[in-house]
Amino acid sequence: MNAQTEKLKQEKVIRDPVHSHIYIQDQIIMDLINTAEFQRLRRIHQLGTTSLTFPGAEHTRFAHSLGVYEIVRRICNHFQRNYPTQTPNDGLWDDHERLVAECAGLLHDIGHGTYSHTFEHIFKTNHEAITQAIITSEQTEVNQVLRKLGPNFPNQVASVINKTYPNQQVVQMISSQCDADRMDYLLRDSYFTGAQYGNFDLDRILQVMRPYHNGICFKKSGLHAIEYYIVSRYQMYLQVYFHKTSRSMEVILAHLLKRAQLIAQDPGAPADFQPGLLRPFLTGDFAIQRDLTQYLRLDDGVLTTYFANWRDFPDRILADLATRFLDRKPFKSAKFTQQMEPLLPYLQQLVADVGFDPVYYTATDNSYNQPYDVYDPSDPHPNAQIELMERDGSLIELSKASLLVQTITGRDMGDSRFFFPKEMFQPEAAGLFAETATQFQSYIRNDQIINPKESTND
Amino acid sequence: MNAQTEKLKQEKVIRDPVHSHIYIQDQIIMDLINTAEFQRLRRIHQLGTTSLTFPGAEHTRFAHSLGVYEIVRRICNHFQRNYPTQTPNDGLWDDHERLVAECAGLLHDIGHGTYSHTFEHIFKTNHEAITQAIITSEQTEVNQVLRKLGPNFPNQVASVINKTYPNQQVVQMISSQCDADRMDYLLRDSYFTGAQYGNFDLDRILQVMRPYHNGICFKKSGLHAIEYYIVSRYQMYLQVYFHKTSRSMEVILAHLLKRAQLIAQDPGAPADFQPGLLRPFLTGDFAIQRDLTQYLRLDDGVLTTYFANWRDFPDRILADLATRFLDRKPFKSAKFTQQMEPLLPYLQQLVADVGFDPVYYTATDNSYNQPYDVYDPSDPHPNAQIELMERDGSLIELSKASLLVQTITGRDMGDSRFFFPKEMFQPEAAGLFAETATQFQSYIRNDQIINPKESTND
Amino acid sequence: MNAQTEKLKQEKVIRDPVHSHIYIQDQIIMDLINTAEFQRLRRIHQLGTTSLTFPGAEHTRFAHSLGVYEIVRRICNHFQRNYPTQTPNDGLWDDHERLVAECAGLLHDIGHGTYSHTFEHIFKTNHEAITQAIITSEQTEVNQVLRKLGPNFPNQVASVINKTYPNQQVVQMISSQCDADRMDYLLRDSYFTGAQYGNFDLDRILQVMRPYHNGICFKKSGLHAIEYYIVSRYQMYLQVYFHKTSRSMEVILAHLLKRAQLIAQDPGAPADFQPGLLRPFLTGDFAIQRDLTQYLRLDDGVLTTYFANWRDFPDRILADLATRFLDRKPFKSAKFTQQMEPLLPYLQQLVADVGFDPVYYTATDNSYNQPYDVYDPSDPHPNAQIELMERDGSLIELSKASLLVQTITGRDMGDSRFFFPKEMFQPEAAGLFAETATQFQSYIRNDQIINPKESTND
Amino acid sequence: MNAQTEKLKQEKVIRDPVHSHIYIQDQIIMDLINTAEFQRLRRIHQLGTTSLTFPGAEHTRFAHSLGVYEIVRRICNHFQRNYPTQTPNDGLWDDHERLVAECAGLLHDIGHGTYSHTFEHIFKTNHEAITQAIITSEQTEVNQVLRKLGPNFPNQVASVINKTYPNQQVVQMISSQCDADRMDYLLRDSYFTGAQYGNFDLDRILQVMRPYHNGICFKKSGLHAIEYYIVSRYQMYLQVYFHKTSRSMEVILAHLLKRAQLIAQDPGAPADFQPGLLRPFLTGDFAIQRDLTQYLRLDDGVLTTYFANWRDFPDRILADLATRFLDRKPFKSAKFTQQMEPLLPYLQQLVADVGFDPVYYTATDNSYNQPYDVYDPSDPHPNAQIELMERDGSLIELSKASLLVQTITGRDMGDSRFFFPKEMFQPEAAGLFAETATQFQSYIRNDQIINPKESTND
Repeated sequence: MNAQTEKLKQEKVIRDPVHSHIYIQDQIIMDLINTAEFQRLRRIHQLGTTSLTFPGAEHTRFAHSLGVYEIVRRICNHFQRNYPTQTPNDGLWDDHERLVAECAGLLHDIGHGTYSHTFEHIFKTNHEAITQAIITSEQTEVNQVLRKLGPNFPNQVASVINKTYPNQQVVQMISSQCDADRMDYLLRDSYFTGAQYGNFDLDRILQVMRPYHNGICFKKSGLHAIEYYIVSRYQMYLQVYFHKTSRSMEVILAHLLKRAQLIAQDPGAPADFQPGLLRPFLTGDFAIQRDLTQYLRLDDGVLTTYFANWRDFPDRILADLATRFLDRKPFKSAKFTQQMEPLLPYLQQLVADVGFDPVYYTATDNSYNQPYDVYDPSDPHPNAQIELMERDGSLIELSKASLLVQTITGRDMGDSRFFFPKEMFQPEAAGLFAETATQFQSYIRNDQIINPKESTND
Repeated sequence: MNAQTEKLKQEKVIRDPVHSHIYIQDQIIMDLINTAEFQRLRRIHQLGTTSLTFPGAEHTRFAHSLGVYEIVRRICNHFQRNYPTQTPNDGLWDDHERLVAECAGLLHDIGHGTYSHTFEHIFKTNHEAITQAIITSEQTEVNQVLRKLGPNFPNQVASVINKTYPNQQVVQMISSQCDADRMDYLLRDSYFTGAQYGNFDLDRILQVMRPYHNGICFKKSGLHAIEYYIVSRYQMYLQVYFHKTSRSMEVILAHLLKRAQLIAQDPGAPADFQPGLLRPFLTGDFAIQRDLTQYLRLDDGVLTTYFANWRDFPDRILADLATRFLDRKPFKSAKFTQQMEPLLPYLQQLVADVGFDPVYYTATDNSYNQPYDVYDPSDPHPNAQIELMERDGSLIELSKASLLVQTITGRDMGDSRFFFPKEMFQPEAAGLFAETATQFQSYIRNDQIINPKESTND
Repeated sequence: MNAQTEKLKQEKVIRDPVHSHIYIQDQIIMDLINTAEFQRLRRIHQLGTTSLTFPGAEHTRFAHSLGVYEIVRRICNHFQRNYPTQTPNDGLWDDHERLVAECAGLLHDIGHGTYSHTFEHIFKTNHEAITQAIITSEQTEVNQVLRKLGPNFPNQVASVINKTYPNQQVVQMISSQCDADRMDYLLRDSYFTGAQYGNFDLDRILQVMRPYHNGICFKKSGLHAIEYYIVSRYQMYLQVYFHKTSRSMEVILAHLLKRAQLIAQDPGAPADFQPGLLRPFLTGDFAIQRDLTQYLRLDDGVLTTYFANWRDFPDRILADLATRFLDRKPFKSAKFTQQMEPLLPYLQQLVADVGFDPVYYTATDNSYNQPYDVYDPSDPHPNAQIELMERDGSLIELSKASLLVQTITGRDMGDSRFFFPKEMFQPEAAGLFAETATQFQSYIRNDQIINPKESTND
Repeated sequence: MNAQTEKLKQEKVIRDPVHSHIYIQDQIIMDLINTAEFQRLRRIHQLGTTSLTFPGAEHTRFAHSLGVYEIVRRICNHFQRNYPTQTPNDGLWDDHERLVAECAGLLHDIGHGTYSHTFEHIFKTNHEAITQAIITSEQTEVNQVLRKLGPNFPNQVASVINKTYPNQQVVQMISSQCDADRMDYLLRDSYFTGAQYGNFDLDRILQVMRPYHNGICFKKSGLHAIEYYIVSRYQMYLQVYFHKTSRSMEVILAHLLKRAQLIAQDPGAPADFQPGLLRPFLTGDFAIQRDLTQYLRLDDGVLTTYFANWRDFPDRILADLATRFLDRKPFKSAKFTQQMEPLLPYLQQLVADVGFDPVYYTATDNSYNQPYDVYDPSDPHPNAQIELMERDGSLIELSKASLLVQTITGRDMGDSRFFFPKEMFQPEAAGLFAETATQFQSYIRNDQIINPKESTND
């Protein structure tokens, strides 16, 4: 693509603690930032319930999106400086691709909604489809800005994001195993949580990155910088993204939304249950095109406002879960192995015995992720693997060059946890049920579910 | 005071990017953090509209309050290690004061509400009075926790915050010109905005801080660290707190709330105007004790949820200002000197001429603050000045020892600005009124209002 | 041990960029720092030839030694605050051990000399024996200061360093797989090189560290912080400590010293060869007690001064190697596998063919290290392994709990390299021997020695 | 100038902790770095005796010179991107100037020798003249590299450094009140000392910097960033560069060199006094062209090697001062005002009375500097003042726009100190002379010389 754009009279900068400054040189980037749909990302937290564990993590998808744009911009600069195309199809970088890349970087998360992970799980929405809709639907400000560069430009940007754009260098900048998106969020989540684990060496990675015929690869001399980035990702998963307290708050959120769904669909529910903007989701008849405006108004503050209203709602479970969420009263949890899974129904029964509905007050949750994955042609959406280029131009796949990466390649990291009310462990809560609680507690040791009747633990 | 407290079995830590970790050793601190009133601070941004200029500045009063507690804790450690009292009234530190100091540090902002600065200005509420109410009113969880340490403990904590507590060492830890509150917010606002100017040397300041008979002073050898802290404050005021864009968004917020007030008090207003939790404020009959619960539910997300609803409200001004606020469409502005003030009515008239009601679409705003202030006994609430202690125990007031501080002492820093719609400067907006806009623009040069009929500028 | 010490009237601090400040509370620590033997560490670089690759890495063993002391001090504080002994042999921390621990931390490297690694290799000296001598020999200032705390105190400090001190908590603070020494040097080397890989989370590790009967272990909840520390070490080895350019400069240094040895022992050597303080080492009759003063004067500056003198020495090889070292002209190198080893004599022959003595102008060097090692009772000096403590007090060895650590446990990391003059690769140097050089170059591809007669490479 | 240069096949990078990486794109820059004269800067510390106060400050002029080059490179990038010249003499940036600017930045300190400040003061050498000689003398490697770009290129580079180059944009990049040199050393000295005061916002300053007809100015919107930079400089002077302990060690160094001078010029001096490379300086017949090689060999390590030899020299004063320098035994000091100056001879007499030669064991030292200076046409080498550019192109001088800067403009900062042996304050040293020492001490209070016979102090 070959979009022409008006340059800003003066380069503009936005202060950003992660990249120091975000540099904006094109009018279209400025205009996209100023759309209502993009400004709305200020009201969507990047990490959902994680700020309930790491109080600094209040950063938003707005700042992250700027950061992704900035990294894309730097990659383009580096490619243009060091690998400018000379002849068509030489596998080098054509700087006419810059603008579609930068727009795609900026907009890649534009469809994200409030607490996406849980929301999509419960309501079967899909932020990727909504991203496509926002970019291509003529009703949005984003689309109107993009169209200034040509009637087909919105589709091009959208196709980069859904990976069908022909130039794989552009696609891989935005989505691959070492892309601007992942690089920004690791640095950003690390900065705002205060967990230092995501703090890999961005400068070094940008410097060993290079275009080639099939996309983007890395000079072999940068092996250790890439390795460190993969380990950073692994550590951030284990220590931040999979943190048991955030997951516990997510369980409460999910159960709260499920309960609201039940009530909304119950003809006999109290008349004063006002689902507001949640209505199409609770009733299950959300249609992207029709309800896009409504979806775009549903930000984190709107959701917690509803929860605040529900604190006093007559349905005891809805009110209690809303209160637990707002006042941050996480469930407790314990890890369990597959072998211990048969014990869970009994533990749920004990929870029921002390008066909690186990449907809403217990849960199991698997948190697994693969920090790095080799290419699997049988996968419908295979991830491009990370390729290293030797001095003589030959390629070697990352996990073949790194023992550390090989260890964690394709391996699921994480654990399975069983969640239950903290009251099962608090003597004052035990009251009448001290015996039941004691019984329950005997099944948990060192943060794991065990069978107290067997003498050994793992 | 001499409160006894249960120690936690295990020191707990909360990850914080500014102080690395917050260390919690007492059950009461843990319990206070877990109250509904304190958790609510997660939903109140520390810097109001500043995040609309500095996208990283999404941090909350929750994290700041933890930070103040942590600095108080470290000051107590330092005092106890180096200046433990030996005999009554020797001017050294009595560690029995630690708990009241830590609780006051943690709770000093507990009464803050959504966008306090603007909110209090428009609705005449007072977060300090509300802080006192939350701590001393028996209906709050905070009060219930504090009372475990004795029936008078809540009053003691409250008296530290309102500066009437007898031990001035404790009072000055929380509120003085170099206190835990100011030190945390400078570091924190600097970290989250990415502006590096607030990044003074906390370790060094803690190390030269010492108790004496009348409160807290600093060893003379720490002069330059204190000087740097004062200059940091000065820079943060000029570059962050007084940023013209944030102030512009505050103007829009204020006018939006004023418009809502007008509508709420108008008997002929559309029936579907639902002020929700804002009602007592809009109608002007807020009573702290009676409406405390309501006040505590009114967080930043609730406010913007109302604004989102108002986007479609029939009142054109309310709907437009709500949209400008949510979509971040700041007013433009220009500085003016006292001499140019007489020109403002004419400029407002020009704004009216192109169709904007100047009551809601123009404003003047003075942003002034004194980074350091010497003691003025005629002031009803004089600020304790910063005293430096020489090796022989004699004291010298900071501005007498530092030329830099002397320069900015008692001097108002900031500017006066006139705000107006960006449309006055945008050709496409000028449309029919191009001539009026051109006329308007001729009054502004180099970000200042000038008289175009006079040939010189400053 | 139960040393009593005079406290300083005022806590003193030394500014340190890694730990912010080093805090000194005891007169004896101050006095040790002020000894001639300790001040001398200012003239011994921490990382030898590494600064020739990473120009920031000019930091000294002086600063590192202060850093180790500071970490030991913090560990003692943490232990005393959270795990103070109640009854003899309860496995908790006895703060009477603090002073011997702090002194041992401060002095653990006191015997290090100039470019220790190479120097000891060539001259068969042993910095550990010299450390013992400095601490226990009555002629040193260090010994005189230590003796103020009792006639046996120097021996106690020395025994901590050589690991025979009875209290293993003290020993493991100074030397174990996660000790104050390693923790300081990783952070410090990372800071001064600018390589970010050594930047693990010290605060978090200190916080999960705890004393137990057999030494020091870590709370299980700190698993990931420890894991990250191990990976940091691994990365620092691969990226900094084993950097091929630094190793190349070490090769030059070693060959230069070997050549000087040859000349010094040659009765027919020119009369003006002045080995100065190097004499006992060059001639091979160094005796610790007798030559201690001389050893202590031989710092990095003295060594390079001799090299500067040798630039003009008639022996062509000595003069050339001295010049290469001072002007930083590293040898080039290539990795080789065991399989390719038989090719090396032929390559050395080619180097000889163009006029370089292969004894001094080629070398092989293996750089291997184990980032983490499990306990091996058959090892004469087995390393204590890292133990994690579960909530119920049971222990689990680190590599059993961490897949990442397991991967790199007991595995040698690094490579074998063949070094040769850069001239073999520089056309202008080839001159008469262009053909030989071309032949030589055909044996190297992608930084590896290959057999050009075989078609495949790995 | 319009030098053409060979580009490197691959951009090279050097890791630097201050700028993350130094980027090298031209063969000539690589070649200059590899010259013997430039590599020698690795053996010259940037801050002389400062590392004796701040142990981290072991950084060298080598790393600083790379840093200056890197900042120049970034300024050129920014100018070329935002202000490329369109027509001759339009006051914008001509990128043909880049190479001369980068070389001048790299080489601006090439003539610096060991402990320049003291060395030049005692021996009347001049590092600026030596810089010119190294660049223009045909015997140096630097000159040979530069000449590859044309016979006049060395002179052009030299003329930038001595400010006579016609293009003032290039000159001011390297030497003005806000130049690449000052910016690098503030950041670098701040990083390595650990003093945080020099940590201004480089990115922001680079971004508001712009070329204009008479050199370089700054956009008015960057006022506060510049202000902060000036205050940073001011703070670094007061807290680091003028630190009393470093100055005290400089006094010892100066007296030591003076004593060596006396001995070298004394026909009756012991025959074994070997001044080595110092001879031409001690005897006073140093001639730049003739002795350049010798000068270039005289690095910090050589100097301290001589001192180590002098520890045992029969001259008691020489031996004692050498020992004090190497073992870091600073003199004590006290500030004095002009009013107290008449007391100094008496205090020197008291020092003499206890047996110290006051010529070598006392000193006065004024440490003054002007952090910012307005243009003074009567000054033979007036400093270009810092100009700010308004939006309409008009200029305003910095101190007219900033109250803080105005305060410290043209004002000498610093103090006068009287130095004397620590023994005057140490009871054990007083011995026979306890009374004299007590008398001496009565003249000093709160780090200042006072007249004990007058009742008040300032």
